[in-house]
Amino acid sequence: MSRIDITDDTYTVDKVGEVKLIELIQEWLGDATPPPPEGIGDDCAVLTVNEPSNLVVTADALTYQVHFDDDISPTSAGSKLIKRNLSDLAAMGATPTSAVLALLCGPDISVEWLKQFFAGIRDTCSAHQIKIIGGDISGLPPGQLSTVLTLTGIAKTPMLRTGGSINDWLYVTGTLGGSILSKHTNFTPRLREGVWLASNHDCVAMMDLTDGLAKDLRCLLPPNANAALEIDKIPLSTDTETLSKTSGKSCIQHAFCDGEDYELICVIKADTDLVEFEAKWHKQFPTLELSRIGQIVEDRGKGPYIDSLTGETLPWIQGFEHLKRT
Amino acid sequence: MSRIDITDDTYTVDKVGEVKLIELIQEWLGDATPPPPEGIGDDCAVLTVNEPSNLVVTADALTYQVHFDDDISPTSAGSKLIKRNLSDLAAMGATPTSAVLALLCGPDISVEWLKQFFAGIRDTCSAHQIKIIGGDISGLPPGQLSTVLTLTGIAKTPMLRTGGSINDWLYVTGTLGGSILSKHTNFTPRLREGVWLASNHDCVAMMDLTDGLAKDLRCLLPPNANAALEIDKIPLSTDTETLSKTSGKSCIQHAFCDGEDYELICVIKADTDLVEFEAKWHKQFPTLELSRIGQIVEDRGKGPYIDSLTGETLPWIQGFEHLKRT
Repeated sequence: MSRIDITDDTYTVDKVGEVKLIELIQEWLGDATPPPPEGIGDDCAVLTVNEPSNLVVTADALTYQVHFDDDISPTSAGSKLIKRNLSDLAAMGATPTSAVLALLCGPDISVEWLKQFFAGIRDTCSAHQIKIIGGDISGLPPGQLSTVLTLTGIAKTPMLRTGGSINDWLYVTGTLGGSILSKHTNFTPRLREGVWLASNHDCVAMMDLTDGLAKDLRCLLPPNANAALEIDKIPLSTDTETLSKTSGKSCIQHAFCDGEDYELICVIKADTDLVEFEAKWHKQFPTLELSRIGQIVEDRGKGPYIDSLTGETLPWIQGFEHLKRT
Repeated sequence: MSRIDITDDTYTVDKVGEVKLIELIQEWLGDATPPPPEGIGDDCAVLTVNEPSNLVVTADALTYQVHFDDDISPTSAGSKLIKRNLSDLAAMGATPTSAVLALLCGPDISVEWLKQFFAGIRDTCSAHQIKIIGGDISGLPPGQLSTVLTLTGIAKTPMLRTGGSINDWLYVTGTLGGSILSKHTNFTPRLREGVWLASNHDCVAMMDLTDGLAKDLRCLLPPNANAALEIDKIPLSTDTETLSKTSGKSCIQHAFCDGEDYELICVIKADTDLVEFEAKWHKQFPTLELSRIGQIVEDRGKGPYIDSLTGETLPWIQGFEHLKRT
């Protein structure tokens, strides 16, 4: 497909106008949006809940030149918006149901770009049986585009971040680091794995890795606890190795500090039969690694992360910071 | 209160960082955010629904230099974000329950400005017993701030836009036009009125006026129908009269075309005893006008709006367009 610029001089949203753009979006989304009152077209969307349920709700933004640039296709950008939110649901052990989309866009945004962006949204929603039930369109200055998706799902037993205790084990799915080379758009949200882990009584806490292990892992540690990590068990992605050759950073530093892994990290109870637990995982998910990377330990006054082999402080403690000057 | 600039040189969000900013937001929101898992702090918020319900969901954005500028206080801006969404719920006859907030902000946004902004959010949420149950923080280029609120509520019988028929009557609450002078921040969402109208069997369709009567009223007209309007019954705000003195536009043009009225417009069944209906309204809401402004009629080929007295086409058909170049 030839490259589509996010702005153009010809067929732009200000020429179409808001009313027509909403009609186009309904057309582009196709089956991924139901007719009103469940779908787009009224002051609110209606979401009928037929039985007592634990709904989970998450919101994530995707902004041009912050979360993506002209190097990725509009289809990939649309898909990424949905998948970022799906990864949050996976982390709660939830199954997605419906979403509301806010589109903030400058007058010079290309209608063709948006069409491809919504094709990415539609395909990813259809693959996960998510319906876009409503939203909002509002203006931004020229050249700018932001989208915010609020995604709702259902969780039988929502898995929180705060269930871990001293001596519990830490596991991660997949491999870490180097996401910037490809995985940041080309990832699979760990939904089936999240539901399976949340329904497993050995699993007591979980989250997804979006800002890097170094920043995110802290959220799973109870007060006055550190993580003792087995450095050689941290699963490195092949892109980590590629990146490390030119970045001046070690592979392990990339695995700790790079954002957008979109893998799950979970806490498994101390008294779990780990051999049996790992065997059950491998039977269920034979092609996806689950690595035991360490253990929650009492605070030893050496910072949040220590090398379990040497007892020394690990130096990597900074992940991705959203609010920085570039 | 002295003026607070949205950006400053001293205490800005990039100096605080995302983790600390989330803690500050929890502190600023106080009782308006519950502890996790119902509140901020996990991958998703959990919303327990105890019985079969019609949830309604809406999203609205509020962007610096699009929806507000430095002339309004951060407290008013925060309050406006909540109230814009409340007006959408009012239009469905719903009662608000909880919200998710996405904050997109540049590195140089002032922490003091945000503190006042969240004070406005807190006070308005508390007044309506809404809980902020989660959200997202992400970056924008310097000097920019956008927020998107997704608000959930419960509606016994959600009132749609599409229930009107030929010969039904059109009513609006309050007065129209001139919102730019004050009402665009200083308005009361018509929540009690919306619930009352939605529970009244004579009311068959409803929406809120945000983009101006001229643009919005079309959404209440069934296919092949026009609105015949009694021009002298359109309720003019006093700000409409003030504005008209210098704008070069008539009062009635302001009332038709100005955005951000945040009043309700509803459709009352043709066979309703209007005297009784109006008497019940005035008993329930003695200080708020409800004006019968016209009737839905068969398409007479003269455009969407006609003067019911003369049968002539009314010229005002454009309301607020979100996607224009300024």
